[in-house]
Amino acid sequence: MEKVKKYEQVVERVMNLIDQGVIKDGDKIPSVRGMSKQMGVSVMTVLEGYRRLEAKNVILSLPRSGYIVRPAAHRKYQKIDRPPEAREFEIEISPETVKRPDLMDEIFRAGYIPGIIGFGAGLPQGVDLPSEELSLSLARVARTYPQEINQYSLNQGDLELRQIILNYMVSAGCTPKLEEISIIPGTTQGMMTVLRILTSPGDVVAVESPGYFGFYELPELLNLKVVEVPSNPQRGISVDYLQALLDQGIEPKCLILSPNFSNPTGALMGDESKEQLIKLCEENAIPIIEDDTYGDLYFGDKRPRPLKAFSPDNVIYLGNFSKTLSPGYRIAWIAPGKWQKQVARSLHVEIVSVPLCLQKAVADYLSHGGVLQHVRRLRKKYEAHIEIYQKLIFQYFPEGTRAGNPRGGHFLWVELPKAYDSVILSKLALKENISIAPGILFSSRGLYRNCFRLNCTVHCTDEAVNAIRRLGELAKSLIL
Amino acid sequence: MEKVKKYEQVVERVMNLIDQGVIKDGDKIPSVRGMSKQMGVSVMTVLEGYRRLEAKNVILSLPRSGYIVRPAAHRKYQKIDRPPEAREFEIEISPETVKRPDLMDEIFRAGYIPGIIGFGAGLPQGVDLPSEELSLSLARVARTYPQEINQYSLNQGDLELRQIILNYMVSAGCTPKLEEISIIPGTTQGMMTVLRILTSPGDVVAVESPGYFGFYELPELLNLKVVEVPSNPQRGISVDYLQALLDQGIEPKCLILSPNFSNPTGALMGDESKEQLIKLCEENAIPIIEDDTYGDLYFGDKRPRPLKAFSPDNVIYLGNFSKTLSPGYRIAWIAPGKWQKQVARSLHVEIVSVPLCLQKAVADYLSHGGVLQHVRRLRKKYEAHIEIYQKLIFQYFPEGTRAGNPRGGHFLWVELPKAYDSVILSKLALKENISIAPGILFSSRGLYRNCFRLNCTVHCTDEAVNAIRRLGELAKSLIL
Repeated sequence: MEKVKKYEQVVERVMNLIDQGVIKDGDKIPSVRGMSKQMGVSVMTVLEGYRRLEAKNVILSLPRSGYIVRPAAHRKYQKIDRPPEAREFEIEISPETVKRPDLMDEIFRAGYIPGIIGFGAGLPQGVDLPSEELSLSLARVARTYPQEINQYSLNQGDLELRQIILNYMVSAGCTPKLEEISIIPGTTQGMMTVLRILTSPGDVVAVESPGYFGFYELPELLNLKVVEVPSNPQRGISVDYLQALLDQGIEPKCLILSPNFSNPTGALMGDESKEQLIKLCEENAIPIIEDDTYGDLYFGDKRPRPLKAFSPDNVIYLGNFSKTLSPGYRIAWIAPGKWQKQVARSLHVEIVSVPLCLQKAVADYLSHGGVLQHVRRLRKKYEAHIEIYQKLIFQYFPEGTRAGNPRGGHFLWVELPKAYDSVILSKLALKENISIAPGILFSSRGLYRNCFRLNCTVHCTDEAVNAIRRLGELAKSLIL
Repeated sequence: MEKVKKYEQVVERVMNLIDQGVIKDGDKIPSVRGMSKQMGVSVMTVLEGYRRLEAKNVILSLPRSGYIVRPAAHRKYQKIDRPPEAREFEIEISPETVKRPDLMDEIFRAGYIPGIIGFGAGLPQGVDLPSEELSLSLARVARTYPQEINQYSLNQGDLELRQIILNYMVSAGCTPKLEEISIIPGTTQGMMTVLRILTSPGDVVAVESPGYFGFYELPELLNLKVVEVPSNPQRGISVDYLQALLDQGIEPKCLILSPNFSNPTGALMGDESKEQLIKLCEENAIPIIEDDTYGDLYFGDKRPRPLKAFSPDNVIYLGNFSKTLSPGYRIAWIAPGKWQKQVARSLHVEIVSVPLCLQKAVADYLSHGGVLQHVRRLRKKYEAHIEIYQKLIFQYFPEGTRAGNPRGGHFLWVELPKAYDSVILSKLALKENISIAPGILFSSRGLYRNCFRLNCTVHCTDEAVNAIRRLGELAKSLIL
């Protein structure tokens, strides 16, 4: 069995390199061809060895990038089960005014304190972003267009960037026209403008629950009432519930959701469910505000289609680059369907102009290639992270703890047994320099107190593993 | 009279250089010391020659920058009178909903069409801005902080920039604390946030009239009613009128104005008038929203004090660099007095973060010096421009035409006799590639139809002089 020995030699060689610290977590391992030369074995033998290493969770293949070493945590916890799936909550149908929990700011800021383990934050890690490349693009734009970038950017934004975004939306299955797309300085501002156009104070808006806290904060600022529509942590918003709500005579002025990998749960609506939702909303003239922030971070074979692809007129689509490229550059866009003229006019009055240098820098970066590979790598990474954190949660948290099983995004939704209070847990954790985002942030009425959101962009270092272990201990200490 | 001849030689020498096109409008003329060497005459002789040239309106002395050649138009029109002063309108006291004239967008865009003579626009000319220097700062920031600028800017903005702004406000006579100051992406957005905090739909807000069109558009977007408070084109808002309005039981939720060189008239409130206004507003609990966009562009010896200096708590101060440095960078700030916490929270929710690279670029530029000299030069230039355009208006416009006599800013307010319609004039002018801003844009109810705003950042070239002449002809053609 000469051949078996040979690929086992390859396995051993790589394991040694890792054990000796020659190649570290996340590093590339030698190319197949290189290893074949080094060891004097055939390419096929090396490939077989690498396949075994991948099956053992030691390395990870990246499309067109070879293989990287999986984080130690993943190697260690490969045999542990993941927790059972988190569940949808039952919610009484009733529109209510929003009262944001006081701890919001504290939690938000805590995610960004240097030195803290920021499971509570919602952002990618700096090292995983193409910040150097974007900076080069920005410096290039500064040198090339000093005069132009110091003037207003009119006409809904830089034409080249809008064209790139148009192509991007088309590749995601949408069919907008160029004039529908306006550049905005962040998704939140676009949503604020839209909400102002669609509502008056006292009106009811429907929001997925749990849902991104911004979906609740903006209605609060506008003195709107919110009716929460339960979202299954795996399958997304309940269309039946929305139907029931309408049957009771509640008439929401719009529906706000992230159907593709919701924040906080990572839920993904299936196409059938999307079609039902679209039909219901069109029949009842309920505009849909779709935040597609996480749509690109899918773990499956194909990017899920936005609701916008199913309903070009009735869906107000919001997209951005904040989770994949550039949180700091604040470049996002809106495709507001039949509200195009009102939105464009309102943006023109309020926002006047989005800084042209940032628009051009993002366009420059996007047109110089490399972005697809970067995002592909990010997906692989987040998928691996989520798998690891699922297992760690199962290992360290109290019995009965559940977690989401997302097929995209970078959040993990953790559901502790009912008696646990994640607000107390988050306060205890902050004292030990660990932040989490308690579940009540993702509702307008204090639901999800036994849940929290874990930001899985945090690298699975020993420190992070210890932090999860410690979180589990703290949770257990809450119930004596 | 040897000496007389010598300085006359200096005068002649400079006149020849100009006539032959060796030095052009706006160019520096040779330094006193250089000319003294060149001509073999004493420094005193050259100085005397230059003084004569200045008295003849041929050259202009700039503090610490020597002398520049005044635009040809100025040299030609030195002997013409300027028109009588524009007047305050009588306005019936009545809050009304805002309906923006349909032509707004057309006019606004027309100001920016390449090739048009943009008297209708509200911006500095590109060549008068330190765009190259700002670009260098931006490129430097991009190189130095690639990671940092790709993260959110929290804590109300970049600390260094906020400190610079604090010092700037202190030098203008204000006494804010650092924590009062938040960076915002444009004055308009800050004002929108404040209006949303202070009002509910249907409420009444008081706005100076004529006033910046944004002061009317934002209330329109928020479904507010506006009560217009007449502003004298020279002395600013009428405190007596505001008193009368209160006496009638009207309770505006706030007052919006630019007391230092209002847009469109360039009116400046005197200190006494400011004190009366402050007293009245404090007594009646009317918050003042002060837009200090033009405060730096004073023609007198001293920067006028903002209302904020008189009433730190009750004035919500908005400042920006758009008219002196960087319209395109969208860096402004707010010092919201006793509404600090509400404003900071609201900005945090809505705007999330102002791009850090732009904040740092502006801070870098401001801390590398040169800005004081640049702004000083801009003031001299705008003062000279306004003087020229006043005279041209007097020469070419119908008898009975009046104009503002502003002591700062870069706008000239032109009041035609009652029978003239500036909307028609602007349409005729647009066909000949000249834009103006008709008076009705600066009111919510179609006042000022016989007035228009002239953007005096436009250089006084022969083309510009011809455009004014043509505008006058078109105006005259309206009344046959």
